[in-house]
Amino acid sequence: MAMIENVCRQTLEATEFVTIVTQGEAGPHVSATWGDYIRAMGIDNDTLIVPVGSMQKTEANLRRDSRVQVLAASRQVQGTHGPGQGCLLTGTAEILIDGDLATKVKEKFPWARGAMLIRVGSVKTQL
Amino acid sequence: MAMIENVCRQTLEATEFVTIVTQGEAGPHVSATWGDYIRAMGIDNDTLIVPVGSMQKTEANLRRDSRVQVLAASRQVQGTHGPGQGCLLTGTAEILIDGDLATKVKEKFPWARGAMLIRVGSVKTQL
Repeated sequence: MAMIENVCRQTLEATEFVTIVTQGEAGPHVSATWGDYIRAMGIDNDTLIVPVGSMQKTEANLRRDSRVQVLAASRQVQGTHGPGQGCLLTGTAEILIDGDLATKVKEKFPWARGAMLIRVGSVKTQL
Repeated sequence: MAMIENVCRQTLEATEFVTIVTQGEAGPHVSATWGDYIRAMGIDNDTLIVPVGSMQKTEANLRRDSRVQVLAASRQVQGTHGPGQGCLLTGTAEILIDGDLATKVKEKFPWARGAMLIRVGSVKTQL
């Protein structure tokens, strides 16, 4: 079953940025990327690909605990309470420095040092 | 010293939404609100006020651990690497159901059940 569909797909297609949250040793760690960047890599049914520039802390966190949460939101998507919808995607992620996916990301984003591959396990509307 | 100034203030003035992250018992908890909402309540030097609709989990988390992180971002703000800047605000927060601040929030947002008062302790640019 596709995870990323309907209103959640619309939100990812419109969001200006997404927030990426991992579990650090001292508490939640918050990172972000532009919506344009994940759209440039293509949004399929249940994965997101994020070009990785720095994100050293996120990478270290994911090695210990691969769980990730991604929040997207846009006023352009019609929500339950009027214009505006948020979507929280929960899943696991890894950062790949070498290999086909990393190469593909580096071709599009020369500043990138690798690719974050997010496997979405569940989605939930927000806002 | 004002915490919310310069590029971070510009980002808060422009961001479409903000992500609000607290520490839950089972990992980070991710919530969000619209930039319009926090701007409507006024952004002063070192506090943010968020109208609280649901946010039951966030409220329970803050009672145990008052630390909060708030991420804002906008392509409209000139960043270090071109158009676009993010800002991560770290501090503590509490949710007030009664009192002057809650009343002020409910006057502007009749659906709100209270006010989240965020005291910003540090800011960091992102993206």
